[in-house]
Amino acid sequence: MTSHLLLLGLLVAGCSLVFASDPSALQDFCVADQNSTVFVNGLVCKEARLVQPDDFFYRGLQLMGNTSNAVGSAVTPVTVEELPGLNTLGISMARIDFAPQGINPPHTHPRATEILTVMEGRILVGFVTSNPQNRLITKELQKGDVFVFPEGLIHFQKNVGNGYAVAIAALSSQNPGVITIANAVFGSNPDIAGDILAKAFQVDINVVYQIQSKF
Amino acid sequence: MTSHLLLLGLLVAGCSLVFASDPSALQDFCVADQNSTVFVNGLVCKEARLVQPDDFFYRGLQLMGNTSNAVGSAVTPVTVEELPGLNTLGISMARIDFAPQGINPPHTHPRATEILTVMEGRILVGFVTSNPQNRLITKELQKGDVFVFPEGLIHFQKNVGNGYAVAIAALSSQNPGVITIANAVFGSNPDIAGDILAKAFQVDINVVYQIQSKF
Amino acid sequence: MTSHLLLLGLLVAGCSLVFASDPSALQDFCVADQNSTVFVNGLVCKEARLVQPDDFFYRGLQLMGNTSNAVGSAVTPVTVEELPGLNTLGISMARIDFAPQGINPPHTHPRATEILTVMEGRILVGFVTSNPQNRLITKELQKGDVFVFPEGLIHFQKNVGNGYAVAIAALSSQNPGVITIANAVFGSNPDIAGDILAKAFQVDINVVYQIQSKF
Amino acid sequence: MTSHLLLLGLLVAGCSLVFASDPSALQDFCVADQNSTVFVNGLVCKEARLVQPDDFFYRGLQLMGNTSNAVGSAVTPVTVEELPGLNTLGISMARIDFAPQGINPPHTHPRATEILTVMEGRILVGFVTSNPQNRLITKELQKGDVFVFPEGLIHFQKNVGNGYAVAIAALSSQNPGVITIANAVFGSNPDIAGDILAKAFQVDINVVYQIQSKF
Amino acid sequence: MTSHLLLLGLLVAGCSLVFASDPSALQDFCVADQNSTVFVNGLVCKEARLVQPDDFFYRGLQLMGNTSNAVGSAVTPVTVEELPGLNTLGISMARIDFAPQGINPPHTHPRATEILTVMEGRILVGFVTSNPQNRLITKELQKGDVFVFPEGLIHFQKNVGNGYAVAIAALSSQNPGVITIANAVFGSNPDIAGDILAKAFQVDINVVYQIQSKF
Amino acid sequence: MTSHLLLLGLLVAGCSLVFASDPSALQDFCVADQNSTVFVNGLVCKEARLVQPDDFFYRGLQLMGNTSNAVGSAVTPVTVEELPGLNTLGISMARIDFAPQGINPPHTHPRATEILTVMEGRILVGFVTSNPQNRLITKELQKGDVFVFPEGLIHFQKNVGNGYAVAIAALSSQNPGVITIANAVFGSNPDIAGDILAKAFQVDINVVYQIQSKF
Repeated sequence: MTSHLLLLGLLVAGCSLVFASDPSALQDFCVADQNSTVFVNGLVCKEARLVQPDDFFYRGLQLMGNTSNAVGSAVTPVTVEELPGLNTLGISMARIDFAPQGINPPHTHPRATEILTVMEGRILVGFVTSNPQNRLITKELQKGDVFVFPEGLIHFQKNVGNGYAVAIAALSSQNPGVITIANAVFGSNPDIAGDILAKAFQVDINVVYQIQSKF
Repeated sequence: MTSHLLLLGLLVAGCSLVFASDPSALQDFCVADQNSTVFVNGLVCKEARLVQPDDFFYRGLQLMGNTSNAVGSAVTPVTVEELPGLNTLGISMARIDFAPQGINPPHTHPRATEILTVMEGRILVGFVTSNPQNRLITKELQKGDVFVFPEGLIHFQKNVGNGYAVAIAALSSQNPGVITIANAVFGSNPDIAGDILAKAFQVDINVVYQIQSKF
Repeated sequence: MTSHLLLLGLLVAGCSLVFASDPSALQDFCVADQNSTVFVNGLVCKEARLVQPDDFFYRGLQLMGNTSNAVGSAVTPVTVEELPGLNTLGISMARIDFAPQGINPPHTHPRATEILTVMEGRILVGFVTSNPQNRLITKELQKGDVFVFPEGLIHFQKNVGNGYAVAIAALSSQNPGVITIANAVFGSNPDIAGDILAKAFQVDINVVYQIQSKF
Repeated sequence: MTSHLLLLGLLVAGCSLVFASDPSALQDFCVADQNSTVFVNGLVCKEARLVQPDDFFYRGLQLMGNTSNAVGSAVTPVTVEELPGLNTLGISMARIDFAPQGINPPHTHPRATEILTVMEGRILVGFVTSNPQNRLITKELQKGDVFVFPEGLIHFQKNVGNGYAVAIAALSSQNPGVITIANAVFGSNPDIAGDILAKAFQVDINVVYQIQSKF
Repeated sequence: MTSHLLLLGLLVAGCSLVFASDPSALQDFCVADQNSTVFVNGLVCKEARLVQPDDFFYRGLQLMGNTSNAVGSAVTPVTVEELPGLNTLGISMARIDFAPQGINPPHTHPRATEILTVMEGRILVGFVTSNPQNRLITKELQKGDVFVFPEGLIHFQKNVGNGYAVAIAALSSQNPGVITIANAVFGSNPDIAGDILAKAFQVDINVVYQIQSKF
Repeated sequence: MTSHLLLLGLLVAGCSLVFASDPSALQDFCVADQNSTVFVNGLVCKEARLVQPDDFFYRGLQLMGNTSNAVGSAVTPVTVEELPGLNTLGISMARIDFAPQGINPPHTHPRATEILTVMEGRILVGFVTSNPQNRLITKELQKGDVFVFPEGLIHFQKNVGNGYAVAIAALSSQNPGVITIANAVFGSNPDIAGDILAKAFQVDINVVYQIQSKF
């Protein structure tokens, strides 16, 4: 008994079956099996006969996110993590709430384009093109406006109205990923060496330490 | 002069440059050039220096669609046709309005998965798996619920509440395509021969003719 | 013993490893391991040293299918199910037999384009383009003719000769899927609600019930 | 007039619009526009209203190829070149005829897997895996047998029956390409230097010259 | 004459044919036609008979880049821009030179993974994973070491030796793109509003202005 | 105990989990889990918390390969086999050493384009286009020159300088595969029948036997 438990335990501890692509499906669907003991997530499809309507369903986007934080915004994601039926289907959704003056700070999605429509409020949106132009493209959106942020580019949103603002976004991956620039650059674990960031941002190293202390 | 105009005219008349895929981008973006005289649509990117914020922008999803029709629903699409900046980025959006009892009749998107969230009302949604199971998977959705329809499968929605209902959908292609089953099978141009449909649907040919007369 | 059998049993019962894409191969081939006890099908490759010539082989397309059915046709598929060496290679084959007047009723392949060549007989083929045109494109084929049905579009074939007809088809997926329109719409399990189909096809609900009773 | 003819002439002479991928379609189809004066082939789609049923059609696979050649076989391809409707759809077909003892010599398709079924005769087929195993996998096929040659691998066929043999093949690209090993290595234009091939094949340089003289 | 020149002029001015993907090739190669008058770049393949060996060739990676700049490093790219034969082939190369203490500041490639090998010197490399972990993964490399930076993640390098350092990198796209974080966030054209960056980086707005003044 | 060991043993013996594509990642990375007892290689990702910097790292390209062999060259590959962090990222590297007059004999990579730069020496490179042209494209390279060999085409290199030569290559797949033409055609296991190769290469069967005896 010992050896086989060891073997299975090692399997549980040491690997995870992660479906590593957003391909077109090989079957009607491949619901991520989140109850599997052995495989952590991803490519393991639930057996077809066990699939239920709830596997394609998520409840909760009517709820406002908690924007009581430093940036005054909250993202409620609906990715394969929250909705296992999205597995292999190449799309996901999110609700974004903004307190007055709240921002969704500069970030990228390494694996997805984002399309967004405003439900309530006025939102300034922008993205920056790659080197060497680094052109900033911005637009102030109102209710019913739609805007697209191309895959991999740095973008941001700001509530420029007087009340709360809400947007619904969709992304072209079941797991688009988010890289918040400030957090990744100044708040990594462990920190990036201060002298590297001081030279990269052309500031005194103490400014780097100051920013790093906030993240 | 004549011959060259003829040549160009022939070019304009006889071909259209259509970008034939939803690939990951080769540059930051490739805004579809809709003003081109020679190339009808698609893969021709606007020159980068001519690209404007409005190329990534669409206004109008706050407007209710006109549901005064036989099925009691209306779809307002935001594809590359309406939002040229979506070109090559693999995503699009739509608003769906439902009158009371209105349906979005059984249809497929040959090139996209659809994710949908309910803004207002109660909506019954369903899709059918492929042969041989043809399993019907349904769910009644309320405000804030999210549901996914896997690529290529036949699906439908019905307003099962008392008032109007509204949903926002996103699709995993810049041009997902829509095949409304009834229209494609019984309303094609020209009609599919009645005997073929009579045998396919196991009905008298006069039933076929009756349905065809409606589309 | 009990607990580990439970664990493995749970694994067997609750999930299936299904390879969820038609990607270009990461190795020379990846023969689907159909004898695996734990993983039901798909992405599990047979170990290279166990691969045999028969893994790339299927016997039987010389045999006529049984066309004694309501539509007078029979499809003999050669997909990854029948030929495990097709796994990850993005192609499959089929033989289609037609009794006199037999039809292959309107259907779609959600994951594949189909190319077909006539071996014997005269076959009328057709497909319908997507909304809003719903244009019917048809052609009467004879022995040696080749025709292509683009991915995801509704298409059909009919034997318009006096004798039996035979065609060989190839499809651009290891598992193209088949959605027979009549079966999916009027024969799903359970049935789609009659009022939805009555409104969708613009017929009396009793016509819907009549058609549903046949599937 | 002169200058504009010069400009267009330069355009015709100096470039060709070639659609450079086998992607999933962005529209129902994209028939290659073979009559275009300016663009040589590929990605230019015919305008939808000009598309005809014959664009999806090819006549001729009933005809036996001429096998009176050094290898005793003939391939009749049906690629996008012969059937413009295949453009962007990722599949093509071919008929292969074999005289008694005829071979389809070792070759690769750099862009496609091949699936083949025997119509008449007995055919020995084989392919070789990549380094370091270089395992030869062979099978003798009879009428109705199906076999698959994975993408990019060297493969061959030989008629091992007494009469003529015929096979129908399908390939997973609209333009799979063919590299006949003997022709590419010993019959390139110009020749590969003899000393390179002598060292590569471990033969006297005169053997190289002798083989090169045959191609 | 006037009208046709106008038409062609409009064509030249208003659009550019950019090949918008990194797909597998549809032909042996598709050399980017950089001399085309009408189409600016990308998907237009040179006619096969005009293709020359130099289309697949670039000279210059033996030359040290000029590292006399604020960060003490220089990248010499070999993308489709410099080597037109790379068009549609999904790969490119670069040489990176570092002065003593020089850094290649934090940046992402929105369309490519990077693999790098050290030719001379000692280089500290690192990348940061996406939210919420933002884990920093670093390694000090010496001559002959190889390291990989996954697509879309923020990464950097620093010369930690005493002399100059050199690396050769390869990237999984013909046009990987570069987003230098500091330049895109603090040096965009025009600037991102200071209050947005102050809130995003949790610093006083004057610190933002100070950094913006450097880019 | 017996039965469960049998079950697991059968699992170990009879299948291998091989990740069968080079897709864009579904997460930041998916380090191949090479220590797994049950799954042989490929798609099984190491659990994120177990991933270490060394998973993205390989040491050894500074070492000269052993060129004391029949062709006078040696390839040191850095694929997913040697660098597990390359899993799912679509790129790999290699060092190629050449003794004076050494060749890298004609071969193809069935799954990758190759880009190469010369570190030391003078190298003649060439590739042959597919049928029917079989055009040989060659170039003599010196230090710092870059050349690209399109995916699937037969290519070779020869040291044409007086001393040793070294090149660094990158390939557009984590596992590009190598098919050395001479070895696959004349050195397969078992041998291809002599009469097939005699007809294919238009030589006496004894010449075939002679060549086969060398591989």
